[in-house]
Amino acid sequence: MFDSMKIERHLTKEAFKEMEPKIREGLLDLQSELIAQKKRSILILLNGADGAGKGAVLNQLYGWLDARKLRTLTYGAPTDEERARPAIWRYWRDMPAAGEIGIVLGSWYHAALARHVLEAPDGARFTETLHAINRFEQMLASEGVIVLKLWLYLEPKEAQERLKALNEGPADRPVVREWDEVASKKLRRQLEESATEAFRITSTVAAPWVVISAEDKHYRDAMVGSVLMDTLARAIAPEAPPVPPQVPLKATAPQLPEVSVLSTLDLTKALSEDEYKVQIKAEQARITRLAASDAFRKRGLVCVFEGSDAAGKSSTIMRLREALDPRCFRVVPIGVPTDEERARPYLWRFWRQVPARGHTTIFDRSWYGRVLVERVEGFASPAAWNRAYGEINDFERQLHDAGYVLAKFWLAISPEEQARRFEARETIAYKRFKLTEEDWRNRAKWPLYERAVTDMVDRTSTFFAPWTLVEAENKHWGRVKVLRTIADRLEEALAEG
Amino acid sequence: MFDSMKIERHLTKEAFKEMEPKIREGLLDLQSELIAQKKRSILILLNGADGAGKGAVLNQLYGWLDARKLRTLTYGAPTDEERARPAIWRYWRDMPAAGEIGIVLGSWYHAALARHVLEAPDGARFTETLHAINRFEQMLASEGVIVLKLWLYLEPKEAQERLKALNEGPADRPVVREWDEVASKKLRRQLEESATEAFRITSTVAAPWVVISAEDKHYRDAMVGSVLMDTLARAIAPEAPPVPPQVPLKATAPQLPEVSVLSTLDLTKALSEDEYKVQIKAEQARITRLAASDAFRKRGLVCVFEGSDAAGKSSTIMRLREALDPRCFRVVPIGVPTDEERARPYLWRFWRQVPARGHTTIFDRSWYGRVLVERVEGFASPAAWNRAYGEINDFERQLHDAGYVLAKFWLAISPEEQARRFEARETIAYKRFKLTEEDWRNRAKWPLYERAVTDMVDRTSTFFAPWTLVEAENKHWGRVKVLRTIADRLEEALAEG
Repeated sequence: MFDSMKIERHLTKEAFKEMEPKIREGLLDLQSELIAQKKRSILILLNGADGAGKGAVLNQLYGWLDARKLRTLTYGAPTDEERARPAIWRYWRDMPAAGEIGIVLGSWYHAALARHVLEAPDGARFTETLHAINRFEQMLASEGVIVLKLWLYLEPKEAQERLKALNEGPADRPVVREWDEVASKKLRRQLEESATEAFRITSTVAAPWVVISAEDKHYRDAMVGSVLMDTLARAIAPEAPPVPPQVPLKATAPQLPEVSVLSTLDLTKALSEDEYKVQIKAEQARITRLAASDAFRKRGLVCVFEGSDAAGKSSTIMRLREALDPRCFRVVPIGVPTDEERARPYLWRFWRQVPARGHTTIFDRSWYGRVLVERVEGFASPAAWNRAYGEINDFERQLHDAGYVLAKFWLAISPEEQARRFEARETIAYKRFKLTEEDWRNRAKWPLYERAVTDMVDRTSTFFAPWTLVEAENKHWGRVKVLRTIADRLEEALAEG
Repeated sequence: MFDSMKIERHLTKEAFKEMEPKIREGLLDLQSELIAQKKRSILILLNGADGAGKGAVLNQLYGWLDARKLRTLTYGAPTDEERARPAIWRYWRDMPAAGEIGIVLGSWYHAALARHVLEAPDGARFTETLHAINRFEQMLASEGVIVLKLWLYLEPKEAQERLKALNEGPADRPVVREWDEVASKKLRRQLEESATEAFRITSTVAAPWVVISAEDKHYRDAMVGSVLMDTLARAIAPEAPPVPPQVPLKATAPQLPEVSVLSTLDLTKALSEDEYKVQIKAEQARITRLAASDAFRKRGLVCVFEGSDAAGKSSTIMRLREALDPRCFRVVPIGVPTDEERARPYLWRFWRQVPARGHTTIFDRSWYGRVLVERVEGFASPAAWNRAYGEINDFERQLHDAGYVLAKFWLAISPEEQARRFEARETIAYKRFKLTEEDWRNRAKWPLYERAVTDMVDRTSTFFAPWTLVEAENKHWGRVKVLRTIADRLEEALAEG
């Protein structure tokens, strides 16, 4: 591996001095365009052996670029707020906004390598992690975050010598050290092998690795500068036309009726007032007990409520809320994104709200907006909402793997019942605020929504995050079904331990 | 105290049922106006003995209001990220946006009472804390956050009985318990006395306490509803005309020349290239060593850079940055606020960036914008920038009390030097991006800025956060002075322990 790296690379100080003003000018011009466009952002992952010059490259980049749109993102031991959430949360939290450049020290590669080499060597899990990283980086690329992965390479022997010199030198300059714990020869060898495997698996079209010989500092810096120029040029290039999905989502034929998952629902299901009172109370008590249990401290609950307008999301959420300790849940309504949210990948606004373990987040509308309203209204391109199914599955898988229970509900009513409820809202004073012009307009698109819901359920109902379709024509029935489903899923998950 | 509370208050179920639709309708109408205006927000502090019905009131409010703009903010034991910052940071972090209502459980009163009663009884410190709370709430009120402080009152004996019933009842409903640790009779008495003192000192015009008898639940809920209606009405009322400051900032007479702190500076101070090289390196090494010391883990460093355009802020920050571990600092440029920032009190965007202990934040422009550019350009009303001096002093005092070192710099150059630097920027390619039309326009306002700087230094140079005026005409001199000042202040603070 990296045999070509044994060939000496060198740049004289004079040659570097001659190149440098051009690099700096080029970088600044390109960066000011990046800032002006506010369309894409760049994450530079600075990786490499200690002693290869991560700190020096960082300083060089600060010297070259407009530091006001540059941030260093460093990850050491996780804080307790980070430990209380999926491992990937800390990177989402710091996601740079469009126009910004983030330089990452201690990236997700560092975490994956450290766990595999130092904590729990497990080849299959390591490979799985690397594939998850690929999907994460692919998603970032699709969302306008360009990931530049730099590997400052030193021959192992050279790295050892540099490190020794660093450790023995005076402490009057800050030094970036990431691999202090890899002390023994055996561990170093394992780290080298694992890093090589990571390199192989994660060199993708969306985010290829760039290996730079770090033996000569002038050569190294000049290379970093020119690679970054290429990357910036890519970041400000006009958007490539989105690739249409190759195959339609499903086979359709104009002469055959379309199939809708919603058509399978029996909307006449109902509970009497008396049955309802008893059952809703029982399900609330179950949820209260489960959410207060010790086992739940290590889990978390994420509930998603989608459904037609006036299907009863708010009133159902209210019944769920009553069962939860107010200190341990949050209801998050999803509406128009803020400008901080618009400047980042789509899923960022949801990652912000992922509960800590032992807590619950209830989403009143959710990330499924992308494959529902954004699809139907044309706010998202076909390429964007098509890839969203996979991105959403990855997101929910990350929550599941971190111990969270997911419960997703589609509250279904008939168009006739919706009309009745809209009319009632117009007359009951304290419900008037819930009805807008737009609600009436959306009704006209019922068939389009039905198709979108069917695709959504087909593609995102997974064993770890299944959809529950709820017959909500009768409010009693709907509320009890939702709370019972949540209680069942919690019970099942907590029994697993 | 509260003798009037001994008078029985009662409301029949029937009377409540009759009132309720009107309360609900009134609240919803007012709240939808609050949401539409997006001008003010409301914080409802729910306080009172356990058993008085904090949880029940919370549920009632969720039932009455549009829950999508309602958030419960609860504070228990601080997380390690919270512990690593000033105590008040956790409340800033959760500040609701304009249009939102936050219901606070475990407010700053709970923290102050718990510390005083359970951890470290200290009368003087308790009083000081209460006065700091008053200033905090006054600032919130001025910034459009209406604080409604509810005290659900029970006679102590009644409270005891309720608590007993709660503890012995079935666990099928979540219960809000905040005072579990106050078990002994002696502690309960101390809590009661301290709470009464807190009530007296913190009942202010800006945020008065509202005491509600919690003995009868219908009476209690009806009272909460109508008090909240009043508060919402206040929140959506047109802004009162700002009160102009009563006295001008300082005595001036048209026939006498104005005095400027900047006129005292000797801008001919300079260092040769050789002196500079030696001294800057020495100061950087001092800072590196101090920031890497164990003593710094318990402190933090906040640097503020203000100054004329082209005074050399960026290049000075670069020299400071080089001395710091890239994993432990952040440079924060202050420009146009985002919409999430605009929707919250002015200082929120700076509180977001307060470093954890052991870390450094370097502000490239800062909260002083309010008394500089916003004053000069008229973006802030005279009332707003006049009260900003006090608010800023409180903010910096909170940082100081939490162990942070503050270093604030005004980089001064002459108008002639500025003109020379602007012209140079126009010709050096990689500096062109730093010059805009606006920079030339700002030059015309030099005398107004000079007056604003003088007031700023007079009013915000405190023993805990002094201003340093820097002769920056000669870049060498300016950079060394800044770094030496930081090193000196760090050294002094760390020596204190």
